[in-house]
Amino acid sequence: MARKHSLFSVLSLGFVLAFSSLATARTADPLPSWNDGKARQSIIDFVAKVTKEGLPDFVPPAERIAVFDNDGTLWAEQPMYVQLLFAIDRVKALAPQHPEWKDKEPFASLLKGDVKNALAGGEHAILEIVMETHAGTTTEEFETIVKEWIATARHPTAKRPYTEMVYQPMLELLAYLRANDFKTFIVSGGGIEFMRPWTEEVYGIPPEQVVGSSIKTKLEMQDGKPVLVRLPELDFMDDKQGKPIGINSHIGRRPIAAFGNSDGDLQMLQWTTAGEGPRFALYVHHTDAEREWAYDRDSSIGRLDKGLDEAMAKGWTLVDMKQDWKIIYPAAKK
Amino acid sequence: MARKHSLFSVLSLGFVLAFSSLATARTADPLPSWNDGKARQSIIDFVAKVTKEGLPDFVPPAERIAVFDNDGTLWAEQPMYVQLLFAIDRVKALAPQHPEWKDKEPFASLLKGDVKNALAGGEHAILEIVMETHAGTTTEEFETIVKEWIATARHPTAKRPYTEMVYQPMLELLAYLRANDFKTFIVSGGGIEFMRPWTEEVYGIPPEQVVGSSIKTKLEMQDGKPVLVRLPELDFMDDKQGKPIGINSHIGRRPIAAFGNSDGDLQMLQWTTAGEGPRFALYVHHTDAEREWAYDRDSSIGRLDKGLDEAMAKGWTLVDMKQDWKIIYPAAKK
Repeated sequence: MARKHSLFSVLSLGFVLAFSSLATARTADPLPSWNDGKARQSIIDFVAKVTKEGLPDFVPPAERIAVFDNDGTLWAEQPMYVQLLFAIDRVKALAPQHPEWKDKEPFASLLKGDVKNALAGGEHAILEIVMETHAGTTTEEFETIVKEWIATARHPTAKRPYTEMVYQPMLELLAYLRANDFKTFIVSGGGIEFMRPWTEEVYGIPPEQVVGSSIKTKLEMQDGKPVLVRLPELDFMDDKQGKPIGINSHIGRRPIAAFGNSDGDLQMLQWTTAGEGPRFALYVHHTDAEREWAYDRDSSIGRLDKGLDEAMAKGWTLVDMKQDWKIIYPAAKK
Repeated sequence: MARKHSLFSVLSLGFVLAFSSLATARTADPLPSWNDGKARQSIIDFVAKVTKEGLPDFVPPAERIAVFDNDGTLWAEQPMYVQLLFAIDRVKALAPQHPEWKDKEPFASLLKGDVKNALAGGEHAILEIVMETHAGTTTEEFETIVKEWIATARHPTAKRPYTEMVYQPMLELLAYLRANDFKTFIVSGGGIEFMRPWTEEVYGIPPEQVVGSSIKTKLEMQDGKPVLVRLPELDFMDDKQGKPIGINSHIGRRPIAAFGNSDGDLQMLQWTTAGEGPRFALYVHHTDAEREWAYDRDSSIGRLDKGLDEAMAKGWTLVDMKQDWKIIYPAAKK
């Protein structure tokens, strides 16, 4: 009997611990970096109504799909997209192998440090920079290049690693949704293979839940081993109309919640909210010129114009970064 | 104290139940439809070595990706691919809207019931049939069509629903891998949107873990709502060299285990086993003419020739369906 009693004690201790941690989880604020307000409340109300079994708006866990844009929604996108800064660094790194770039735009300007002139060629110039710097390696080599860059590169003005220029309130939101059995996906106009090497560590989103733009690949044998070689040919553009197409291709069911910050996310939010049953759409509105950047209707990066009108007309949640967020970025890592 | 005691009793009851079900799970055979033998043992040995923390071959759960071909690996593919039987039924259903088919091959032959003649045109004829029957609807309409068909169609000779012509030993294998924290994916030459409507119910594999061939889609507004319209244009062919490309695009990391049955799966098995650390490759070999079908090197459907040689040369697991499987299909549903 003594043995049985001691077993009981161990069991009861285990239960007390289990219950007390449950109690802590219940009472702890899941969104501590969000100020009280309409935006925060709309998130909590939506999660509450879709997770209560028996209520009319209940959604089974398998269907709790939430999609997030990346640039400007989960991390900063100013003064230009992080991936473009990566591509510019790659041009510099690859320049010794490309003597012809000295006389060829947009590379010549980039190598002289004149980014503005290099990008004057618009989308065509950007596409050329991306193709030259993102193709020509195997997928594994490219992954290594991205990992090394993201570990060492610093934001031009903030001087912090880009992985620390993610939005702390959005990290909490991702974790809160997952704690409520949502499956969280990134659906970004950015390159799928530029994001996958670090999204799991930074956002808790594994590679198979990242949807993005892509270039084609080709299977080849190198030294008797199969490799995938990245080709300088666009495969898929995951922006605007492309977002619902990418969601359909990669996820295969309609999300019930979508989070974006620009007109490039509008079709994703429309697609998400056009489904039956409870739906949630949220725009992050960049209103904080002091702690981050303030931009919307007239910005060339992350323009939010039509989307802002539609959000107001349809009653989507608008996050006012200045008002709604206590802090923007997480504390620096030691 | 009385209250405390009764709480203890409840707790202890809960624990006894929990422990006893754990004990059952531990001792119950996870692969009851598999005969003892090399194939079964190789699976169990692989799972054991990658799941034991501290051992050199341990693989963290997030990286336990297992990919499965569908036709001939998870369900029967004779006398022809199920999706082709679906397409033929669709030709009949759509014929009233296409009076021109009466004089146009391959449709004319199909409508006369002469499948052999219709398919004499080879891949081109099949592609024409698939495009005419798989495009032109919205993605939601197509999902409904597939769901209705799969619920009512019967196999031409076995007279059973196709969803009951799945391999019981493979269902057990899928469940066994998932119980060991593997994430299971389908990577099939079949149409991604032909599989997704039923894979979750039949295999426990959700839509977002299905990779397959696809046609293009286009975002349109219909009655003020966004829809995705299916276009008669091939987007991606997920077969042979396409399988590693599809895996890279949809999953973004290399699987550690791959399961197939034909030369169309060879590149997937090569890609999987070319990674570092413990790897597992398995071919289902159709050897049972009585309970299923016997075919390999000379079959036009599911040919296993080069793959058979490579499996033997490299020591991959070969499942001899006749010897290794106690039963082929699950019992009929009531």
